[in-house]
Amino acid sequence: MVVWFEGVDTTGKSTQINMIKNSFPNAILTKEPGGTQLGVSLRELILGQKKPLSSKSELFLFLADRAQHYEEVIYPNKNSLILSDRGFISGISYALANEIEVDLGTLFLLNRLALGGSFEGKIVFFETTTSLIKKRLQEKELDAIELRGVDYLMKVQEKMKSVLKRVELPILHIDASRNIESIAKSIEGFIK
Amino acid sequence: MVVWFEGVDTTGKSTQINMIKNSFPNAILTKEPGGTQLGVSLRELILGQKKPLSSKSELFLFLADRAQHYEEVIYPNKNSLILSDRGFISGISYALANEIEVDLGTLFLLNRLALGGSFEGKIVFFETTTSLIKKRLQEKELDAIELRGVDYLMKVQEKMKSVLKRVELPILHIDASRNIESIAKSIEGFIK
Repeated sequence: MVVWFEGVDTTGKSTQINMIKNSFPNAILTKEPGGTQLGVSLRELILGQKKPLSSKSELFLFLADRAQHYEEVIYPNKNSLILSDRGFISGISYALANEIEVDLGTLFLLNRLALGGSFEGKIVFFETTTSLIKKRLQEKELDAIELRGVDYLMKVQEKMKSVLKRVELPILHIDASRNIESIAKSIEGFIK
Repeated sequence: MVVWFEGVDTTGKSTQINMIKNSFPNAILTKEPGGTQLGVSLRELILGQKKPLSSKSELFLFLADRAQHYEEVIYPNKNSLILSDRGFISGISYALANEIEVDLGTLFLLNRLALGGSFEGKIVFFETTTSLIKKRLQEKELDAIELRGVDYLMKVQEKMKSVLKRVELPILHIDASRNIESIAKSIEGFIK
């Protein structure tokens, strides 16, 4: 079974995956994008483009990564526990936040297609606030997405919440301001 | 307006584009995949993968190329004449010939999405025969796709013909065995 860790940057997804992995010694840790060689290559390719990529081209590249990740990591390990840092919820939500001209139904269709025809697994969703994002951004180095600013991250989060309402999988909502040990316990209970 | 030159390898698409370009001195010559920097990068990336790409991942990479080609080459030049060596007909037909688990309706939807929401332009379709393919393959160096063999190319051609039946654009059917000067005249008349 795959557990998708979703939420905008600074909400503590990676921290939690590292916290709980000791409780699940056989778990497979992965991420999107970047959990396959293709994902790593695509990241380099996107950063190396001189002309800006169209939003649709970028969408298809992320879908290619998702399809390959499904084929290479998710499907062959479906009988093990897989902890994935991001997945299709991020894929759909960032596309919406970037105001791509593709409707929500089509985005769901494209992502289902990349994931073998259906959505599977459980979702842990980390929710944050403007003030918590600001505090955490000051504490760490900023990557390209984080530099787009707090308003952008809050917009992505709103999209994630609306996308989650349409997904029929078990979802654990986490208040990202809680202390990390207490969050880890909630997640362990949800997974077991 | 874009004119898509479609047909399997060895049917003479590139030869014809080179023949007629003198009659249309302002025409923009392009191709799919490879008409953009992204296309060239994707080709290198695909060839450089150690693990085989899943058929869906490959489909999405070609769609990313098509979307970028549309945004960078087709749309900005829509008031000029664009001669494109391959396009969405090849995209859909090769996916079908490779027995990808995506139905024809979805393949059309994906390609329309990559092309700004609708199919535009005219299509020149080159049709060949088993014996003509064999003759021409003996005359030239084989690339990876051609090496898959004559039967494969004939299978792709059958898919192209079934796809063309569902496309509502002007189509010029060319018998690839005709002499090249006579074919060039037919194409010039169709484009003008």
